[in-house]
Amino acid sequence: MRISRITVTVVAVPDLPLRNVIGCHQPYALRNIIQVHTDDGLVGLGEMPGGTQMRVELEQAAAQLIGTDPFALEPLRVRFRDRPKVQAAFEVPCLDLMGRATGRSVADLVGGAVRDRVPFSAYLFFKFATPDDWLGTPVGTPAARAPLGMFGAHDAVLTPEAMVGEAEAFIRRYGFRTLKLKGGVLTPAQEVETLRLLRARLGPAYRLRIDPNGGWSVQDAVAMIPALEEIGLEYYEDPVTGADAMAEVARRTTIPLATNMCVTAFADLPELAARRMAKIVLADHHWWGGLEALRQLGRFCEIFDLELSQHSNTHLGISMAAMVHAGATVPGLVYASDTHYPWQQGWDIVNEPFEFDQADGSLAVPKGPGLGVTLNEDAVHRLAEVAAAVPAEHRDDEAVIRRWFPEWAPKHGDVFRRLIT
Amino acid sequence: MRISRITVTVVAVPDLPLRNVIGCHQPYALRNIIQVHTDDGLVGLGEMPGGTQMRVELEQAAAQLIGTDPFALEPLRVRFRDRPKVQAAFEVPCLDLMGRATGRSVADLVGGAVRDRVPFSAYLFFKFATPDDWLGTPVGTPAARAPLGMFGAHDAVLTPEAMVGEAEAFIRRYGFRTLKLKGGVLTPAQEVETLRLLRARLGPAYRLRIDPNGGWSVQDAVAMIPALEEIGLEYYEDPVTGADAMAEVARRTTIPLATNMCVTAFADLPELAARRMAKIVLADHHWWGGLEALRQLGRFCEIFDLELSQHSNTHLGISMAAMVHAGATVPGLVYASDTHYPWQQGWDIVNEPFEFDQADGSLAVPKGPGLGVTLNEDAVHRLAEVAAAVPAEHRDDEAVIRRWFPEWAPKHGDVFRRLIT
Repeated sequence: MRISRITVTVVAVPDLPLRNVIGCHQPYALRNIIQVHTDDGLVGLGEMPGGTQMRVELEQAAAQLIGTDPFALEPLRVRFRDRPKVQAAFEVPCLDLMGRATGRSVADLVGGAVRDRVPFSAYLFFKFATPDDWLGTPVGTPAARAPLGMFGAHDAVLTPEAMVGEAEAFIRRYGFRTLKLKGGVLTPAQEVETLRLLRARLGPAYRLRIDPNGGWSVQDAVAMIPALEEIGLEYYEDPVTGADAMAEVARRTTIPLATNMCVTAFADLPELAARRMAKIVLADHHWWGGLEALRQLGRFCEIFDLELSQHSNTHLGISMAAMVHAGATVPGLVYASDTHYPWQQGWDIVNEPFEFDQADGSLAVPKGPGLGVTLNEDAVHRLAEVAAAVPAEHRDDEAVIRRWFPEWAPKHGDVFRRLIT
Repeated sequence: MRISRITVTVVAVPDLPLRNVIGCHQPYALRNIIQVHTDDGLVGLGEMPGGTQMRVELEQAAAQLIGTDPFALEPLRVRFRDRPKVQAAFEVPCLDLMGRATGRSVADLVGGAVRDRVPFSAYLFFKFATPDDWLGTPVGTPAARAPLGMFGAHDAVLTPEAMVGEAEAFIRRYGFRTLKLKGGVLTPAQEVETLRLLRARLGPAYRLRIDPNGGWSVQDAVAMIPALEEIGLEYYEDPVTGADAMAEVARRTTIPLATNMCVTAFADLPELAARRMAKIVLADHHWWGGLEALRQLGRFCEIFDLELSQHSNTHLGISMAAMVHAGATVPGLVYASDTHYPWQQGWDIVNEPFEFDQADGSLAVPKGPGLGVTLNEDAVHRLAEVAAAVPAEHRDDEAVIRRWFPEWAPKHGDVFRRLIT
């Protein structure tokens, strides 16, 4: 079995004006859909962030893989040393191919599942109400103007009280038992008040997290600690930016700190081991080099008594499948993983969209073969047409929010901006 | 595919009176041969150190695996958490089964080979001449009295000059370009003189190592450094015992230190990362939990700019196969691996005995399926009969050497003793 052809297709999927520390989401999120074909007619699937720049980088890398064996994962990593995104982009479709060739699931091929279901967390965003022309201009295709069909109306969620309603809708629809609040948007006090209202409404059984994306000062982050400890937080994610600031906050609280901003690569791990400025690493197979890399990161965390959860960006069903296989096979991944998946409901490009268990927000591990998902060619075609019509080639959350706040100039978010673009 | 039956067979393979820091090898080395059968008629092979005690432990563990899927490697590790030898004992035959079921090699299933050939090192021991009755008593079976058939005569090698002849015989027969001297037997000065003679005879192209198994004092180990640096050593393996002593020696020399004594498990790695008392970890899949564990150890070493080589104990062809697959798939395993394999030439229990390339001492990576070796049932049966007749149930190098030195009482070797028994 040899790789005979690789295609990379940019798709644009509708998204809502979800707010974050630097601005808000664009009307469309760009993803790259990777199809790795073999000489015996199999196709392995992959999905990566980004638009044209990522597509070009992936296509250049893909040319080097023609004629190679999909089982040759470690040679792939050696070939693209220091380019973990490229490793991940092709490791996942190669694992999918290995599964299709052997009749086994990806989970089986990366060590076997230690759990049958993988827990996920609600990802709660403050958001603007969707303008009437949100998807219409500047795209202009009929597909792009189609209704989103998400949770009925798209009302604004800009207050602590509104967020409680949003959380209840998520719980009702998806069963989540863990809720993550995307912070760094209102004031720290308002966001902590949001958590307090959530705790009051939901009781002690739900796990709560907050992620200000490094947007709080150390002073604010420390000032919030007494209230957060009283509310009861599962973890405190990137309240501040940089290892020094994280270490300072970590020293002041019994709540474990989590990060996907000051630890984003294997090269960051010696400092983490030495300073322990976070207890929980939010792993992302797209960033770290793939599923095997997450298992190696998992071993690292075991060695140093650190813990693991999964980070997420806006994504579709191929990434969802890979995240579930990762979540099933890394023993230390006991926290509910983040996922943006609910925000794109109805727009997936796989024929087997994922359904969260309404009892606990978990997903079943696909039985395979491979990732256990197949491509909905029509959906890909439609979202690729949208992508072709979207002028933006990379994510620019700051430009979008100026529609609401013309004078917008984010005070924080340098690291966040670098990570998402 | 489910595991239906597991057998563990103790075999005893003839060995020579090879000397080390605590005594010398017994006439027979004990190994456990593991056969994991599946309901569809496949058999996966494994090999582990030890005798009856290990057999009983493995049989008790095996009972828990009946009915499980050989692909379920991570559940196996979780089940036998903190028992890496048990993990390794069953991971390797499960990988063998996965390979047989899919038609792929073990190397393909643990990431794919990054090299086609794996370099090995000569393992040079000072040794006694073989007594006429070396294999005869107390065993008493005809098989046990059969000639060893190794390198013709079994002369003593007890001087630096004799060791040069031994090294040349190894190079002639096996092509090794790296030579490891098992030290801790003569005086430090005599052993360094041995290395000096080897360098003088062989020239600069050969790589030399010495391993006193922690038997030297810090004072001696440091005193030898100028001579060792002049001779040119690839690495200086466990000259002394304990992290403090190793760190002290490491501070005094440019020669990298290697260890399989003060770092033997994942739990030892935080101290290694913090103190860097060795640069090279001598990994052993039998100790660390299997091939996947070695790949995770390899990633750890990359993260901390450490290096990897492979440790060996007396072993047969199943372990040899596993070591070659490990050597092929762990990118950081660039040093020639240790192996005792030549010492048991002619006594292997696989139908495909390994042949070192006479040009460079390397072994080709078996193409598979699985490990790429099959069991020679007659050989297993014969060596199992020997094992049944051998009274010793564990390794006792101190008892044996009293045959030559009745008053023998080793001054060093507590750690070494614990590791081999």
